[in-house]
Amino acid sequence: MSGAAPVAVLCGGVGAARFLRGLLDAIEPEAAGSVCAIVNVADDLVLHGLHISPDLDTVVYTLADRIDPGRGWGLADESWQAMTMLETLGGETWFRLGDRDLGTHLHRTQRLSQGAPLSEATAEIAAALGLTLQVLPASDDRIRTMITTIDGELLSFQEYFVGRQHAVETEAIAFDGAASAAPAPGVLDALAEAATIVIAPSNPIVSIGPLLAVPGVREALEAGRDRCVAVSPLVGGAALKGPAERLMREQGHEANAVGVARLYAPLASALVIDHADAADAGRIAALGVEPVVTDTIMGDPERARALALTTLDACP
Amino acid sequence: MSGAAPVAVLCGGVGAARFLRGLLDAIEPEAAGSVCAIVNVADDLVLHGLHISPDLDTVVYTLADRIDPGRGWGLADESWQAMTMLETLGGETWFRLGDRDLGTHLHRTQRLSQGAPLSEATAEIAAALGLTLQVLPASDDRIRTMITTIDGELLSFQEYFVGRQHAVETEAIAFDGAASAAPAPGVLDALAEAATIVIAPSNPIVSIGPLLAVPGVREALEAGRDRCVAVSPLVGGAALKGPAERLMREQGHEANAVGVARLYAPLASALVIDHADAADAGRIAALGVEPVVTDTIMGDPERARALALTTLDACP
Repeated sequence: MSGAAPVAVLCGGVGAARFLRGLLDAIEPEAAGSVCAIVNVADDLVLHGLHISPDLDTVVYTLADRIDPGRGWGLADESWQAMTMLETLGGETWFRLGDRDLGTHLHRTQRLSQGAPLSEATAEIAAALGLTLQVLPASDDRIRTMITTIDGELLSFQEYFVGRQHAVETEAIAFDGAASAAPAPGVLDALAEAATIVIAPSNPIVSIGPLLAVPGVREALEAGRDRCVAVSPLVGGAALKGPAERLMREQGHEANAVGVARLYAPLASALVIDHADAADAGRIAALGVEPVVTDTIMGDPERARALALTTLDACP
Repeated sequence: MSGAAPVAVLCGGVGAARFLRGLLDAIEPEAAGSVCAIVNVADDLVLHGLHISPDLDTVVYTLADRIDPGRGWGLADESWQAMTMLETLGGETWFRLGDRDLGTHLHRTQRLSQGAPLSEATAEIAAALGLTLQVLPASDDRIRTMITTIDGELLSFQEYFVGRQHAVETEAIAFDGAASAAPAPGVLDALAEAATIVIAPSNPIVSIGPLLAVPGVREALEAGRDRCVAVSPLVGGAALKGPAERLMREQGHEANAVGVARLYAPLASALVIDHADAADAGRIAALGVEPVVTDTIMGDPERARALALTTLDACP
């Protein structure tokens, strides 16, 4: 553990992973151990008997420089022989699992079946891939985002996100299991001890939402509000990827940086927003949240690094 | 269903698969539907959360011309990316699972998790790979061969067979779950209706043994003894592959064709043995079992076909 100021980052998948990549690039390599990523697990699923943790894997693969840059998920240099065989057999192939990626799911599932909590399996996987930051699942307990569509259909998150390509209108969103879940070991300590807490540019509803639904996490953020800065995932009222804008709107929030600020106002004292949303700065400030205007589109590692530096500087 | 005389074959893995290949080559293609393979499932294991059925897969892959001819197990043209990743992560890699092969285990596990019995999942896999014979697991219930070594260690079959390369001395062999297992749907009917029942050249102790331990199977064979012929898996007192000879001896049986004949005498009226064991014919006949001497080494498809024809002719 270095003596660097500890940073805790609340994370979903792709956006958070890119932000963390920038953060690790922005600090000394030996300071990586002072960074703790607290990652959403409500997108997890059990498919074909395997425990799959998409957000944890996206974070770990990205930071280990193993992510497939084109797809933004899964491993680089991937092959798809298992899926091809599954297709031959008429099996379920809507959720694509690459051959290398399967190795991760096999290992995680085996460790869980041996009684290891998800946090332990995750730490092992992160360490085996050479990571020195701490990667924590929000909880070792089962939490599942369940989406009720306006047609009354109940979908798991991945059925909604991958199966339906998030092209259906949502009525209600619930985080099954969250109310009785405990934060994974280390989560509350990381939030209490962090010099800076960052809410990564992830989907406020279905990535950060389930984190806040774990008893103790919201309270820890409220207590740490002065040390907490959020990064808006919306740019010009649109999500760069995924259904953040649509879900914000459908769930009754203003689908722009102001809506994000309103959601996070009890938790964060500053919100990093894009130049495209500079006109919203006044309304955000009126909510008691300090707007920080910068370039939030992490188009390349240097811009991700700059965003991380600006974010760390947002909390005095 | 053709009008061909029905044949039921009790099967382990490699030897049985090659015999079945020969049998299917020996009959009209449209008669394949009258062949029923009843396959050992006591070698099955759950690893990494996946339900793996080695004998069922060996039979199905062989008959679908998908088996890897070099290894004798798993699929041809296999890749090993998942195992490589599992190694990177420090996971369990003693039981090798190829990428394509994983597709089968994913599908089977998913179907079982959806409530399908193993027999249904097996039938689907066999049909998807173009097979028209009936492939039945001995039981849809959980049966596990458990081996106690002379050192008192308790091993699952695959720990013994793959993990230890069957190089440890066995004390006791039990088929956990067999006593309360039911034959899979179709098993007893196939045995009752078969014009010929064949006990394939499989390990009498750990391949055929668990089949006979399923309540009703031994009784069905005893009732069908006149229609039943066994093929000795031992040639000149040695197994062509695997620990058959060693296990016969360790479990108190004569480790040659006579020992096989003694085990099967209540169940089979004839035993096909190799020319190398012709000298044992008299002792076999003395047990009330008709010895049929031929070439039992299935070195190529033509010899497997000839063995199948000889075997079918053994029961008048």
